[in-house]
Amino acid sequence: MYPFTTCTQDSISSLGERALIEAITGWLGEANDLAPSGIGDDTAVIPPSKYPQLITVDSLVYGRHFDDTTPAQDAGAKLLKRNLSDIAAMGGTPAHAVIACFLPATLETSWLQQFYEGIAHCALQYGVRIAGGDITACNKELAFSLTLTGQLHHRALTRKSTRPGDSLWVTGSLGGSILGKHLSFPPHLPEGQLLAQSPTVTACMDLSDGLATDLKHLLAPGHQAVLAKSNIPIATAAWDMSQSSGLTPLEHALSDGEDFELLFSLAEDTDIDAWTADWKASTDLPLTQIGHIRTRDEDACPICWDDETPWDINLRGYEHLGNA
Amino acid sequence: MYPFTTCTQDSISSLGERALIEAITGWLGEANDLAPSGIGDDTAVIPPSKYPQLITVDSLVYGRHFDDTTPAQDAGAKLLKRNLSDIAAMGGTPAHAVIACFLPATLETSWLQQFYEGIAHCALQYGVRIAGGDITACNKELAFSLTLTGQLHHRALTRKSTRPGDSLWVTGSLGGSILGKHLSFPPHLPEGQLLAQSPTVTACMDLSDGLATDLKHLLAPGHQAVLAKSNIPIATAAWDMSQSSGLTPLEHALSDGEDFELLFSLAEDTDIDAWTADWKASTDLPLTQIGHIRTRDEDACPICWDDETPWDINLRGYEHLGNA
Repeated sequence: MYPFTTCTQDSISSLGERALIEAITGWLGEANDLAPSGIGDDTAVIPPSKYPQLITVDSLVYGRHFDDTTPAQDAGAKLLKRNLSDIAAMGGTPAHAVIACFLPATLETSWLQQFYEGIAHCALQYGVRIAGGDITACNKELAFSLTLTGQLHHRALTRKSTRPGDSLWVTGSLGGSILGKHLSFPPHLPEGQLLAQSPTVTACMDLSDGLATDLKHLLAPGHQAVLAKSNIPIATAAWDMSQSSGLTPLEHALSDGEDFELLFSLAEDTDIDAWTADWKASTDLPLTQIGHIRTRDEDACPICWDDETPWDINLRGYEHLGNA
Repeated sequence: MYPFTTCTQDSISSLGERALIEAITGWLGEANDLAPSGIGDDTAVIPPSKYPQLITVDSLVYGRHFDDTTPAQDAGAKLLKRNLSDIAAMGGTPAHAVIACFLPATLETSWLQQFYEGIAHCALQYGVRIAGGDITACNKELAFSLTLTGQLHHRALTRKSTRPGDSLWVTGSLGGSILGKHLSFPPHLPEGQLLAQSPTVTACMDLSDGLATDLKHLLAPGHQAVLAKSNIPIATAAWDMSQSSGLTPLEHALSDGEDFELLFSLAEDTDIDAWTADWKASTDLPLTQIGHIRTRDEDACPICWDDETPWDINLRGYEHLGNA
């Protein structure tokens, strides 16, 4: 949906700031139902937490993370889901969000309404309350950032905490998310919490920049990931894209961004049969062992193939720039 | 300081995303010293809180909140201080921040370094830890949003909670902040905490959009603020601006934004002499009684003069758009 309008009365410029804030509060509906103090005071007041807490921020920019073909509701949901995926990757439970908007005066009010309705629907689905926000007029760019808090009811799943001998696993299938999954993906919150309750999980992260890029950040210093080329779960969308992209399906699976799957490692002494049986009893989300972790020789790459063929993937990375 | 450069090697485009995150982590120094998990994992982990918590977000846009004349350190400090002022207005203690950046490729790396050093210096001064952030490449706009959490060690100071008969007070002096105070202001954290410990304070907020605009949001529904024209504390900068602006100093004091002073009300039965003596024993910040609160007649303005002359201020508001 094209977000802008040349008709002043249909644009946010016809509303004052306070009217816009009131409208947003209405669009959020129950997702904004926050006592004692939500939108409208100097800050929101949120309850004490006896658990350790999580905080993360992610952004969404028109022309970069969504475009004129994106339904506004889907763009709003994506902003929240990107953050939910980060909470999932820590094994946490989401709690409260605040949203900063940078809005051009020509933004169509109905687009913004649908954007916020998409956020609200997703927030209610995943138990998030929108606690506040900020609106800033902007000349040239339509952009948003959302900060999400969470709680750790179990331990935190961390990066850089692999151990030699760990097996390496990924949920779902990879590649080609730009064909639709970058909008439709579900954040894997139940699965992240399941992993956090399993003492044998050594490290975990979500895949936002592509496996080949992200995997390096899962590894503890001095460790190497050994991947089984034939085991990488390639998404149908990766095959579809390879028809015209000049890249192989495997290259798409390794280098495309925004899969929002979970990548994690299991300790060497895990009873894999029992562990995967427990997984299947709890979730339908597919799971694939894609390799293992070993100590890295000083000059070696952080990632290699298990058949000792050279690591031949051109690491384009994913140029949305990612999470700090 | 002009933030951009045509020289690629001096710009952030010469750094990859990971190198930029590492650089930022270094620039933040001790302000980023967060255990067990700060910048670099999927989310930051922050401690449990036995107190109620605060969360707020505020933004900063090049050309709107700072410009080429603004030292980059001052721009960074302003981003954090805008949020600190909101925490102060609630009577809270600041805790953790996350920062979302929207950065054009032509941004000069040294500008960004000084910006983050300004944040870090201010964070250490006020006891804030930077827990994480997000970097997003942006074509056309240099913008930031900062989310700040806090704790309430005392009660929350709210808006819309005035009572008829309350006296109305403001700290410092008002108007003309664009001449310097919008960068140099100190957030009034000790004073906010002092107010939160005084049971006689009925409502409080910080002034970001100008007294005439903000005061309406302090008032409980059906209340009217009666202002003593001769008591409004007019800043020297408001007089300076009136030399060329075509507005009176009083108009500047009432309608200019970004004063970041505290506006609050005291219950009618307060022993004012004793209360102000306590204030002066705790802080050097000037304090002025500017009026009182009464029940509003149905058709009356929310603000009026105590000499019954018409409320003659042209409410320009302050067009940065403000806090949701």
